[in-house]
Amino acid sequence: MTDSWATFGADLHLELRGAGLRAGLMDALREAVRSGRLAPGARLPSSRGLAADLGIARNTVADAYAELTAEGWLTARQGSGTRVARRAAPRTGRGAAAGSRPPGPPRRTAAPVRKARHDLHPGTPDLASFPRAAWLKAARKALTAAPDEAFGYSDPQGRIELRAALADYLSRARGVRAHPDRIVIVSGFVHGLRLMARVLRDRRVREVAVDSYGLDVHWRLLTDAGLRLPALPYDEHGTRTEALGRQGAVLMTAAHQFPLGGALPADRRAAAVDWARAGGGLILEDDYDGEFRYDRQPVGALQSLDPERVVYLGTASKSLAPGLRLGWMVLPRDLVAEVTAAKGEADWMCGAPDQLTLAEFLTSGAYDRHVRARRLHYRRRRDQLVAALAAEAPQVRVTGIAAGLHAVLTLPPGTEASVVQAAAHHGLAVQGLSYFRHPDVPHGPDGLVVGYGTPSDSAWHGALAALVRAVP
Amino acid sequence: MTDSWATFGADLHLELRGAGLRAGLMDALREAVRSGRLAPGARLPSSRGLAADLGIARNTVADAYAELTAEGWLTARQGSGTRVARRAAPRTGRGAAAGSRPPGPPRRTAAPVRKARHDLHPGTPDLASFPRAAWLKAARKALTAAPDEAFGYSDPQGRIELRAALADYLSRARGVRAHPDRIVIVSGFVHGLRLMARVLRDRRVREVAVDSYGLDVHWRLLTDAGLRLPALPYDEHGTRTEALGRQGAVLMTAAHQFPLGGALPADRRAAAVDWARAGGGLILEDDYDGEFRYDRQPVGALQSLDPERVVYLGTASKSLAPGLRLGWMVLPRDLVAEVTAAKGEADWMCGAPDQLTLAEFLTSGAYDRHVRARRLHYRRRRDQLVAALAAEAPQVRVTGIAAGLHAVLTLPPGTEASVVQAAAHHGLAVQGLSYFRHPDVPHGPDGLVVGYGTPSDSAWHGALAALVRAVP
Repeated sequence: MTDSWATFGADLHLELRGAGLRAGLMDALREAVRSGRLAPGARLPSSRGLAADLGIARNTVADAYAELTAEGWLTARQGSGTRVARRAAPRTGRGAAAGSRPPGPPRRTAAPVRKARHDLHPGTPDLASFPRAAWLKAARKALTAAPDEAFGYSDPQGRIELRAALADYLSRARGVRAHPDRIVIVSGFVHGLRLMARVLRDRRVREVAVDSYGLDVHWRLLTDAGLRLPALPYDEHGTRTEALGRQGAVLMTAAHQFPLGGALPADRRAAAVDWARAGGGLILEDDYDGEFRYDRQPVGALQSLDPERVVYLGTASKSLAPGLRLGWMVLPRDLVAEVTAAKGEADWMCGAPDQLTLAEFLTSGAYDRHVRARRLHYRRRRDQLVAALAAEAPQVRVTGIAAGLHAVLTLPPGTEASVVQAAAHHGLAVQGLSYFRHPDVPHGPDGLVVGYGTPSDSAWHGALAALVRAVP
Repeated sequence: MTDSWATFGADLHLELRGAGLRAGLMDALREAVRSGRLAPGARLPSSRGLAADLGIARNTVADAYAELTAEGWLTARQGSGTRVARRAAPRTGRGAAAGSRPPGPPRRTAAPVRKARHDLHPGTPDLASFPRAAWLKAARKALTAAPDEAFGYSDPQGRIELRAALADYLSRARGVRAHPDRIVIVSGFVHGLRLMARVLRDRRVREVAVDSYGLDVHWRLLTDAGLRLPALPYDEHGTRTEALGRQGAVLMTAAHQFPLGGALPADRRAAAVDWARAGGGLILEDDYDGEFRYDRQPVGALQSLDPERVVYLGTASKSLAPGLRLGWMVLPRDLVAEVTAAKGEADWMCGAPDQLTLAEFLTSGAYDRHVRARRLHYRRRRDQLVAALAAEAPQVRVTGIAAGLHAVLTLPPGTEASVVQAAAHHGLAVQGLSYFRHPDVPHGPDGLVVGYGTPSDSAWHGALAALVRAVP
């Protein structure tokens, strides 16, 4: 046993906290790695040994080790046992991935999508993959166990069962500093953004900075609320947050810029937080598909840098299905009441059965199992996309592929419109990169935003073939 | 295992907190007994069973049981296992009462309700009667049969399966002239009313007439939207609709005036429709408890008189449970697009699983069976209320009892406030009639609005006895 373990293991009894034993153990181990109490490469005791030491079941420890290995905190190698990963968790963050979000409300893309034979629009997961049986199993357990009051008029903030389950999940899987009291359940990202627009307007905020690339449906929602949306400059490293100025808030997809796909570098994350602290600004973090990170250590949520200055928004729309209409906000202390009131005024919105079912789905581990399986599946598709293009269209550069459900294909200058048109002609629905460019940004590279997560398995290979045919 | 355990056990993973496993388990159990989640006498699982369930060592559980027994929270008797002590701790209502409140935002009555031992607030059905097993059966059938696209970004108008099922049910059970294309699914009456407020404002409507008695949360929603709300005069036959004038719309509970309980006479219904046709006005029909009619033929919806001038609003909040957050609007042809757009802008709101489940619940006949059973049940309660008052407080007149889940008790002039206060003092939550009076209506009879549908069966007789004690 290493010294690093010896000093930590003795205190572990006191470290166990949070929701559930496995989660509590995982929190303690994660924190120990994060803080350096467990050094990179440090060897952990066997699951049997630790279980005996703590007086808990061996499976609880084994499960915790397995999940932390899946999250990239630990490594397990035949013969050398379980060790702390050499590059566990970036210094900027505490947890797992972040990624891409959908083209918001469907009206913008629904029409073409329905007509197209092949659909590679970004923003929707493979709907055929929704885990119906597991969902129904969770529904049975949740609705059987629910107290009667769960079926009554409930707290606009959302069911406590779901907020508690999310606080646990978001902290361990996404590095979010979350407490059930700080979470408000919403019916999707657009709903949460709308509530924030209302709150910002009430606070006399006039300007919200946005990236040079993003979703016009989100921009329109904010401008409809009377807000101006200056675009922040962008370079090869990402959004230049040091350019933040008098704006009252900034909307970011820091972990996986949508649609360009980069992760915001640590220094620019820090610059954004410094800006927020200095001027009392708010950062709206759209962490839309954070579960799907493929090639490197998880990129932690920006929120963990300063929970009092960052509004974290996430949903089940990519990880499970948009049709659930379930999302969540993790809020600074002084925003909880305002956001809850703004939501309650309109209506409570989210049905209790679906909220209770998602809570059970999370606490039972079914959510983690589903996400792990989908991650492998989407990663395989991404690899197939990259390989097919390398073979058939080597001149096309593919970027933003470290995470998420979409990739950006860089096209020869001046060809984007004709490629999108040719694709549509061949029954392939795909969006040009310029579609996502801020109106104040006059120029940008030609490209395609390819949602490789969208098709069902049966439709995927046909869609990929059609894409390869469509690119020059 | 008892229900009380089943309710609590499922959440126990979330409850464990504090330093150390045994202490955490003891805290969770103590809190569950204190809050009433584990009822006095409730049997706990064996230490072996719970240890396996939680994945912790058996001794940890056995020690916790032993200490809690020593502290007097639990009792251990040979043969009967470990149970919650009969007089372990006072209950702080966590049953149906905590969720009960008038059909409106909770903030208004939440506080008093939580403290009340007996809850007779109107507006909530018996939450213990929610048909969990039948609902889960419908969910299994609906989610198994659903097309993949049901889990995607869907039509803001609502799932077609549910709109089709409602068109059939509403025409059959409520005489509504409904077609799926005219129906928009909402998350409750308040949500539908809010959408209408938005549409009316866009149409430059300035005034919406309302009854002399109603719900201030609805009035506030409309005034917040910038609308003026003149009150229509009221006499013993109901609202005097012939007094309608320049207003652009009128909000009515024609089938069962809330809270007074009368059905609008045919000539006054006709007068309202004539007014709407003559001046292009709209009638907003709040059909909140139309299913529950006891002493005569159901009173059909006003909407059937002129589907192009009446906006029909209904929900599952009284017939099933408010927690479903599912309601519906049946709209004139020229309003469908406006209302759908207003809804879509904010978000789609209603989750597909709950929508699909309600559709199956309706088409399978389970909804009709449930409503028939509840109707008999609530009617019995009403009869018990009337009989108890006739025997114990013959001077109290009971009105508005032909339908619905509430009755109005007429009190001697000048006694309302003191009766409500005395009731609260005896742990009975009940609302005075004046609470529902329009601010422009200076005077009105003293009375109580008694929600006899609210308590669970186990709480009903105690609540009734408390009411009889409270009235003069």
